Amino acid sequence: MLVGYGVVGRGVAKVLNLKQSSFIKKGVKFKIVAMCEKDGSIFDPNGLSLKELDNFKKHRSFTTETALKLIPEIEADILIEVTPTNIINGEPGYSHIVSALKSGKHVVTSNKGPLALYYNKLMHIAEKHDRKLLFEATVCSSTPVFSLVRKTLQPNDILSIVGILNGTTNYILTKMHEEDISFDTALREACEMGYAEANASYDVDAIDPAAKLVILANALMGMKIKFADVKKTGIREITPEAVELAKSRNRVIKLVGEVSDSTVEVSPRLVPASHPLNVGGTLNALMFRLDLAHDLYIVGRGAGQIETASAIISDMLDICGCL
Amino acid sequence: MLVGYGVVGRGVAKVLNLKQSSFIKKGVKFKIVAMCEKDGSIFDPNGLSLKELDNFKKHRSFTTETALKLIPEIEADILIEVTPTNIINGEPGYSHIVSALKSGKHVVTSNKGPLALYYNKLMHIAEKHDRKLLFEATVCSSTPVFSLVRKTLQPNDILSIVGILNGTTNYILTKMHEEDISFDTALREACEMGYAEANASYDVDAIDPAAKLVILANALMGMKIKFADVKKTGIREITPEAVELAKSRNRVIKLVGEVSDSTVEVSPRLVPASHPLNVGGTLNALMFRLDLAHDLYIVGRGAGQIETASAIISDMLDICGCL
Repeated sequence: MLVGYGVVGRGVAKVLNLKQSSFIKKGVKFKIVAMCEKDGSIFDPNGLSLKELDNFKKHRSFTTETALKLIPEIEADILIEVTPTNIINGEPGYSHIVSALKSGKHVVTSNKGPLALYYNKLMHIAEKHDRKLLFEATVCSSTPVFSLVRKTLQPNDILSIVGILNGTTNYILTKMHEEDISFDTALREACEMGYAEANASYDVDAIDPAAKLVILANALMGMKIKFADVKKTGIREITPEAVELAKSRNRVIKLVGEVSDSTVEVSPRLVPASHPLNVGGTLNALMFRLDLAHDLYIVGRGAGQIETASAIISDMLDICGCL
Repeated sequence: MLVGYGVVGRGVAKVLNLKQSSFIKKGVKFKIVAMCEKDGSIFDPNGLSLKELDNFKKHRSFTTETALKLIPEIEADILIEVTPTNIINGEPGYSHIVSALKSGKHVVTSNKGPLALYYNKLMHIAEKHDRKLLFEATVCSSTPVFSLVRKTLQPNDILSIVGILNGTTNYILTKMHEEDISFDTALREACEMGYAEANASYDVDAIDPAAKLVILANALMGMKIKFADVKKTGIREITPEAVELAKSRNRVIKLVGEVSDSTVEVSPRLVPASHPLNVGGTLNALMFRLDLAHDLYIVGRGAGQIETASAIISDMLDICGCL
């Protein structure tokens, strides 16, 4: 069942529809048996079509019952929780996830709030109920991060993770670097392009990348870090002069997150122009420092409807045993 | 059982010894029950220690029996085939792998020859005997490529793969770019640093990256390409003048492999200085063009004893169900 039918929810429905036959070839047939939005919910055990989802208010099953009411009642294997991130208390995502796990559903989410605030608590509930809680889409969207480490680098221990975790601020800093414009002008452009999140503060004040850093630290390095533990410095204070000075030294200013035994911090840093972490536009980039494989970089899109759906469906296939 | 005790074989033994307790925590205890080298073989069902392996000629079980004789006789779950690549006929690796699969062993290999020459044949044999044949270490060493696509990007179809697949030539080209030296001088340096393979032609004439491209195409894109199908141009003819001209246009010359529906080629190409594929030194970099996640880059070490062991042990853990 799908909870949340904004950009991400629609993307999941679209890709499931588009690539249905390719998933059937892998031995899995996905059906969306229920969808809940703020305004109401619909359900059909035989599966809801894309058209029914898009016109859900006209569906014969339409009810104003909330997700929280329906989650324990609907028979489904997986809850896809894609409501917006709330970093204050993690709601409504947190309650949705807990309710699903307790009623025997696996959970796949792109919602950073619940995981950044209650990672260990949620994992404990998932374990207790023998269900999976997967969240590849919470960090770097389609770019594999959690599954990369867990499924492809298993012999390695992680010494540190350093990266560009927010596409919006990377877009702003790239624009400032390339066009010598001010922060305000670049931010305006990012909003016009649809790159800035509803609340631009989440991006430019480093709240979004800090939430991601907490999830990375707890999920991949076995830490017990809280959101409040992350030292956060945003990019509002960066002037064209600072960008220029960096450029004259063959460096770029990037908003960099780092987690290691001694550091949990998101802040603007100077990155050498030739460094693999110097990626432009809305790209995200992560560097893993590993004991065996040493420095490994992964670079890709950090947002986008279809991209985020890719990560969510990857988790869904994982739950179905299609690794 | 371990066949081949050169740099890679020793690396595997070393890491298995070093991280034994970490693998036991994952629920797996590895034992090397036999080791075969050109000069002879040793075995012990209780496991061979690092010391016994390093001094194998003095071991009580030492025999001049060949690997080919012993593979069907030794009781082992996995054959680790790490003899050197032979791109003419794939031997002795090819026969080792076939014999192991037929005698019920899974196979993990870093040997490019057998896979570049007989990919589909070998996969057919593996399937027939219900055994796994894994080869993460054949391309980009510790940098996950095959497991990346198979285990973390499952919803995606690959449209093309483009990359820097050979660390030695990347080192040579980086040196030529940074120090304005000739190809011959840079090659000599690469040999002195131990980066060039025994036969430098494998690297500089694009044989090694072409072999890797064939494995990528067949394993990840379902193609049936033969080694001879790859259009290969090496880097011998690249002059300091050409490097200089590229530099003046803010570009670098890289030896790039590409496979798509229309192209299977390794050749020197101009890459924009700011492009994520512009990686320096001995690094390897791959760009996957995917239908959902779009452009995804992975960058890491393409060689090294411990790095290659990381890839091999990742495959071994995969076989043991530790994904």
